[in-house]
Amino acid sequence: MKDLVPAAGNGLYDRRAFLRGGAALAAAMTGYSVKAETLTDPVWSNEPGTLVPPYGTPSKYEKGVVRTLSNPDFEPRNSHARTPHHLLHGTVTPNGLHFTISHGGNAEIDPAQHRLAIHGLVKRPLVFTAEALMRYPTVSRFTFVECGGNSAPMFSPEPIQASVQALHGLASCAEWTGVPLSTLLEETGIDPKAKWVIAEGADSQRLSRSVPLAKIMDDAMVALFQNGERVMPGQGYPMRLLLPGWEGNMNVKWLRRLELAEQPAMSYYESRTYSQILPNGKAFRFYFIQEVKSYITRPSFGVELKGPGFYEISGVAYSGNGKITKVMVSADGGKSWAEAALQEPVNSKSFTRFRAPWEWNGGPAVLQSRAWDDQGNVQPTRADFVAKRGEAAKVPSPLAFPNQHFNSITSWAIDANGGVRHVYA
Amino acid sequence: MKDLVPAAGNGLYDRRAFLRGGAALAAAMTGYSVKAETLTDPVWSNEPGTLVPPYGTPSKYEKGVVRTLSNPDFEPRNSHARTPHHLLHGTVTPNGLHFTISHGGNAEIDPAQHRLAIHGLVKRPLVFTAEALMRYPTVSRFTFVECGGNSAPMFSPEPIQASVQALHGLASCAEWTGVPLSTLLEETGIDPKAKWVIAEGADSQRLSRSVPLAKIMDDAMVALFQNGERVMPGQGYPMRLLLPGWEGNMNVKWLRRLELAEQPAMSYYESRTYSQILPNGKAFRFYFIQEVKSYITRPSFGVELKGPGFYEISGVAYSGNGKITKVMVSADGGKSWAEAALQEPVNSKSFTRFRAPWEWNGGPAVLQSRAWDDQGNVQPTRADFVAKRGEAAKVPSPLAFPNQHFNSITSWAIDANGGVRHVYA
Repeated sequence: MKDLVPAAGNGLYDRRAFLRGGAALAAAMTGYSVKAETLTDPVWSNEPGTLVPPYGTPSKYEKGVVRTLSNPDFEPRNSHARTPHHLLHGTVTPNGLHFTISHGGNAEIDPAQHRLAIHGLVKRPLVFTAEALMRYPTVSRFTFVECGGNSAPMFSPEPIQASVQALHGLASCAEWTGVPLSTLLEETGIDPKAKWVIAEGADSQRLSRSVPLAKIMDDAMVALFQNGERVMPGQGYPMRLLLPGWEGNMNVKWLRRLELAEQPAMSYYESRTYSQILPNGKAFRFYFIQEVKSYITRPSFGVELKGPGFYEISGVAYSGNGKITKVMVSADGGKSWAEAALQEPVNSKSFTRFRAPWEWNGGPAVLQSRAWDDQGNVQPTRADFVAKRGEAAKVPSPLAFPNQHFNSITSWAIDANGGVRHVYA
Repeated sequence: MKDLVPAAGNGLYDRRAFLRGGAALAAAMTGYSVKAETLTDPVWSNEPGTLVPPYGTPSKYEKGVVRTLSNPDFEPRNSHARTPHHLLHGTVTPNGLHFTISHGGNAEIDPAQHRLAIHGLVKRPLVFTAEALMRYPTVSRFTFVECGGNSAPMFSPEPIQASVQALHGLASCAEWTGVPLSTLLEETGIDPKAKWVIAEGADSQRLSRSVPLAKIMDDAMVALFQNGERVMPGQGYPMRLLLPGWEGNMNVKWLRRLELAEQPAMSYYESRTYSQILPNGKAFRFYFIQEVKSYITRPSFGVELKGPGFYEISGVAYSGNGKITKVMVSADGGKSWAEAALQEPVNSKSFTRFRAPWEWNGGPAVLQSRAWDDQGNVQPTRADFVAKRGEAAKVPSPLAFPNQHFNSITSWAIDANGGVRHVYA
């Protein structure tokens, strides 16, 4: 990297290195290609390929790129399927790999029979079919959905040795298309006494959450499509509530009912499972927004380094408050920082891919990322976060286990062999 | 639509109607919901759902949302799989439904054995493995890929009664992530005599195309990921050439070789299959750019209207030259036009979703869309296009059949029953 001036310690270069057409970086690359090799014709160049199928699937060589399941035998409890961030790239999560949490399995709903009712404090209660909703004005937007319990393993007092999929895999990002709820509520009319909307799913849990009416009128939609095709069963087919930037569980899947009310319902999922317990034993009554966050996906636990030299450090950043404005990256555990490049377009409440050029000298390194959003929020350090929010006791108590809305910095330590460990730094 | 001022004839309203929070539109909606209905608990609300799988798939009720195959028995000829635009929404084409054309089936390549060689007029010929490329600086971008032969049925002298999938299904859009070719060529170095890059696939056809070096250095990439996951076999796994905005066939799949040269190779696919024959019997030597284009996907052939009243007219627009700046929509066969709303963000050389509010009065209507791009190009009318580029003879000649780069306006005629026919208007 002879033409490059370091931007921070331990081999981090400036993001502007990317803008120079690769000239400066190219010098650092030599050696990662395979220089002397005789090319041969492999079997696939000499035989016909395989049938082009009606619905494409990944290569058989990528069969390990799947969601990890917390309940593969489908026992009568909830099921988590986590996104393999460390094996993906870009900002879109493909639908097959979008995280899912289901409290009673994936409901398999016949869209012809499904109904969405809007009732309660409205002027004209109405019931909609999916077919009727298809006639309404639609919007599309990229947005992430993240479980409030994503990153819960980070509350552990000792760093858990696990991949970014295991630590942060309960967040994904897609282009959602549907009908703005403001349009449907203009049609039903709103009783001025209404302040909340109680959303209920058609699954066997009848999962319900209460949403402030202001959020519903701001940017909520009834989502019908996800990355172009109809939402998948694990995302709430034939329709789900989408609340950009808000706790995943509130984005009620298999949506069948929206009741306008003066007060929240204080349902099971909002008053027990997804309420955050604080160090003083009290709990946040509600914690809706998924705060600004980032993590490095490459390199990361399970994505090891193959000897010293150039690497691109890359990851995702997002904020439920708005757009990501800056991501800083450190290679020395936070002693010095370089600004990462952000992939355009940066969408509000959406995954933003960041990248930083790095030359690993083969010595110890601790990689971190830290994100800022356009509402003035900054991702907290672990020390600051734990001071306010606590961490799990060494002997966990089932009564007071903090497990929600973790958003501090994640640290990956590189050892001399290129191995990656999860550390607290 | 009592609060709305028509923007054009036959019921078209202004796109700004979308901006008023649905208030004006809501009045037009009443009646499309299902007003009086007793809600019941269907079976899926009373029984557990199904296992959350490692890799999600669409609902069984969406099994008709697939690509149509031109060669389902895999005879020894090319295979087309067309994107069902009329059943999708938004701007992203999900990977399973991205169009594919394969001239010898889908090559199934072991990525550990695959190599990409860059040689010819370079200073240092190099060979890259997929694993080596993963260390390089990457970029992500949304871009469409479109076959030069997309919309070829529109050359027919009589309008073919077929869906937008059959007419225009050889175009799709995804977020692609990979290594800029400018970076790799900085590493190999370029002999000043080099003006072309000959790209070759590792499939059994060894499909090859010649690309001007200037395009390669501008925005070409070796794509490794598509909508977050590795490119699918039908898109060239483990790597493909991506030339944003240029003829699909040039985006060589299963990429194994890039040879820098002074002259194009005049390979089979560039000198015969994808050369465009003109009315005077001559042919364009090369026709690289996919010109500005749009088509309405809803309503369209196969997506019928259910009685008079409000509908959203929606479709996709794109240009290989840059960004879409404007889409106009007509409901009276081009006599009058209203400006459609464009979904933000509008990305260069990418699908742009347009929408226009429309109230169908139950009478005859002919729906059209017309797009403009930021390089000053406008989508031609059919009359202008055919005058310059010809149309197929009533008795087709295999020697001079125009079938490439069709981009004029598509027209859908609505009959009194809400049926949709393809017409020339």
